[in-house]
Amino acid sequence: MFEFKIKHKSKTTKARTGVFVTPHGEIRTPIFMPVGTKATVKTLSQKDLKDLDADIILANTYHLFLRPGEKLVKRMGGLHKWMNWDRPILTDSGGFQVFSLAQEKAPGKKNNIKTSVKIDEDGVEFKSHLDGKKHYLTPEKATKIQHDLGADVIMAFDECAPADSSKKYFEEAMERTHRWLTRCKKEHEKLNKKQSTKQALFGIVQGGLYKSLRKESAKFINSQDLPGNAIGGLSVGESKTEMKEMIEATVPYLDENKPRYLMGVGTPEDLLEAVERGIDMFDCVHPTRMARHGAFWNEEGRHSIKNERFKTDKKSLQKACKCETCTTYSRSYLRHLLFENEILGLRLMTVHNVHFLLNLMTQIRENIKKGTFKRFKTNFLKKFKSKK
Amino acid sequence: MFEFKIKHKSKTTKARTGVFVTPHGEIRTPIFMPVGTKATVKTLSQKDLKDLDADIILANTYHLFLRPGEKLVKRMGGLHKWMNWDRPILTDSGGFQVFSLAQEKAPGKKNNIKTSVKIDEDGVEFKSHLDGKKHYLTPEKATKIQHDLGADVIMAFDECAPADSSKKYFEEAMERTHRWLTRCKKEHEKLNKKQSTKQALFGIVQGGLYKSLRKESAKFINSQDLPGNAIGGLSVGESKTEMKEMIEATVPYLDENKPRYLMGVGTPEDLLEAVERGIDMFDCVHPTRMARHGAFWNEEGRHSIKNERFKTDKKSLQKACKCETCTTYSRSYLRHLLFENEILGLRLMTVHNVHFLLNLMTQIRENIKKGTFKRFKTNFLKKFKSKK
Repeated sequence: MFEFKIKHKSKTTKARTGVFVTPHGEIRTPIFMPVGTKATVKTLSQKDLKDLDADIILANTYHLFLRPGEKLVKRMGGLHKWMNWDRPILTDSGGFQVFSLAQEKAPGKKNNIKTSVKIDEDGVEFKSHLDGKKHYLTPEKATKIQHDLGADVIMAFDECAPADSSKKYFEEAMERTHRWLTRCKKEHEKLNKKQSTKQALFGIVQGGLYKSLRKESAKFINSQDLPGNAIGGLSVGESKTEMKEMIEATVPYLDENKPRYLMGVGTPEDLLEAVERGIDMFDCVHPTRMARHGAFWNEEGRHSIKNERFKTDKKSLQKACKCETCTTYSRSYLRHLLFENEILGLRLMTVHNVHFLLNLMTQIRENIKKGTFKRFKTNFLKKFKSKK
Repeated sequence: MFEFKIKHKSKTTKARTGVFVTPHGEIRTPIFMPVGTKATVKTLSQKDLKDLDADIILANTYHLFLRPGEKLVKRMGGLHKWMNWDRPILTDSGGFQVFSLAQEKAPGKKNNIKTSVKIDEDGVEFKSHLDGKKHYLTPEKATKIQHDLGADVIMAFDECAPADSSKKYFEEAMERTHRWLTRCKKEHEKLNKKQSTKQALFGIVQGGLYKSLRKESAKFINSQDLPGNAIGGLSVGESKTEMKEMIEATVPYLDENKPRYLMGVGTPEDLLEAVERGIDMFDCVHPTRMARHGAFWNEEGRHSIKNERFKTDKKSLQKACKCETCTTYSRSYLRHLLFENEILGLRLMTVHNVHFLLNLMTQIRENIKKGTFKRFKTNFLKKFKSKK
């Protein structure tokens, strides 16, 4: 059911192209997956996503579990039918959100609901960021929820330790994550047998910024022989060098014949660096979130549309860009829409940013195929400045 | 340049179909014009509006004058080029907004900017609802702004007296509106001569809820022999009966060979009643605003998608509706989007409501053509309940 076929390999780097086959279609790798937290990629319709040629989108277990609840989604026929999206979907396990969202005070809420997370061997007790209500998630429950949601790829329930934890705690969390993976796998295999449409479970490598832990974790996760392997706990504040080192410490221990998924990463520079180091899949809220704040990418880097210099600029966001936004609207008009908080503006900026990243991935795949990936990367980064 | 061709007349009512020819294309009447206050119909793209088959959209002089300023729009080539909308546009004069928005405290602003309006023979001083800055609008200036914006149809600068004014004040305001119209007309004719793309100026009938004033105003406005005539100052809190009486008191004095535009009206019932009484054009923020609050129309009337009964409802908003929303998404999914304040939900509800009204106008035109308007109206209203 789930098959990963490597198509081309870069000779000078670890980059490769491939096709990951799922029940809802093929995913061309390396791939970026737009994030649809609450079963909608913010501002975009499913038609927009098809026009943008997205192979796969992501949805969040934590959010959908809290509202509207996985049972409703299941009753509506699962995520694909409910959203009317017939291409692949991946759900995260909720692990990351439990430890980030639920650990902090509720974001943007006036009442500042205090939440806390209690971890034991069995699972995690946390308070909802919405209303402070207590919930308990276990590896089995997170797996069952994801089976009810019905995504093609589901993720193991892991513990993402806070960045300021001690090495000892990172090790404990990693070991717990490993024990939890075996429980997720057991539950998943039991549930998968009962269903006609099969799902794939990916395990998640943890270990903080410790090469030795990353290696140990990668070996364990890989030993579970799942259809794909993910790297979690990065892009959480570490330096670019640290991120690259952790990828390098992990990738050699993850089966090269399975897709490798680097979670939560999605800037053009990070994508290029990670693909070079052997990563095949990515997701991140960055392109969609920055769009709603009026920021966009083009070949020169990142810009804010609200900048005064765009006031009378008749050009498109990016020269020769084929997205709906660039083929239809000027920077001047887009600047006006963003200044006025007009919803159309948020959508048009999102269309462009998602197109930019998906197009970058297409170019990456083409250049790996032609054997010119390394040169493409160097040329791209020569022009591109992430902060202007 | 501007020609109104009547195509069919109802034998039992004053309803008629026609075509109003403008420099940017033909408008099929009776027509509903979606409101694009700040040069964008909230949540919709220009492609969405074409997919919805909108013949003409409206933009607001007051808002665009304050931000980004008509000079910027002119520099960008006018509204059509700036928005990339090649079909007809109508701009109001800002009169109504000056007397409504600027008269109240700034809506939704924490600082509650106090604004006030001072009227004299020359024009109106008001404070911006955005920042409290003083501005002065005269008939000449409102006309010049609209020439800079470049819409196909522009509106005279009128005074819309508060609903609780005395008859004496309504009369004074009406007479001032008449004097201002002659000044708008003079300025308009001067400016129109200089431009290659001509614009049409419509006058606006005022007179509150006094039949005698409405008659007097209609006669005066009609005597100016402009390409179209509008009725203002209605749908401001009066009863349905009063609205109908005012239309009936006005229409007989407005040239039947010119389009008649009832400003600010846009519920299905009001459209049917007004078409029956000889109205050809309408605009209103209602369908788009109610969409963003989660309300929608179908053949049974008005509903709120947030209602519990839609939680697991797999049906579309309206049976057999051909809009993108109804052909793609269930009530259950839409309810989730609206509950989560997801931007996609706001857009999808807007698509449906605008489609509903434009489709109603299409059916109205078809039934006038077939001679079955009266029966269509009766049958429609028998099923339709605006409040559920």
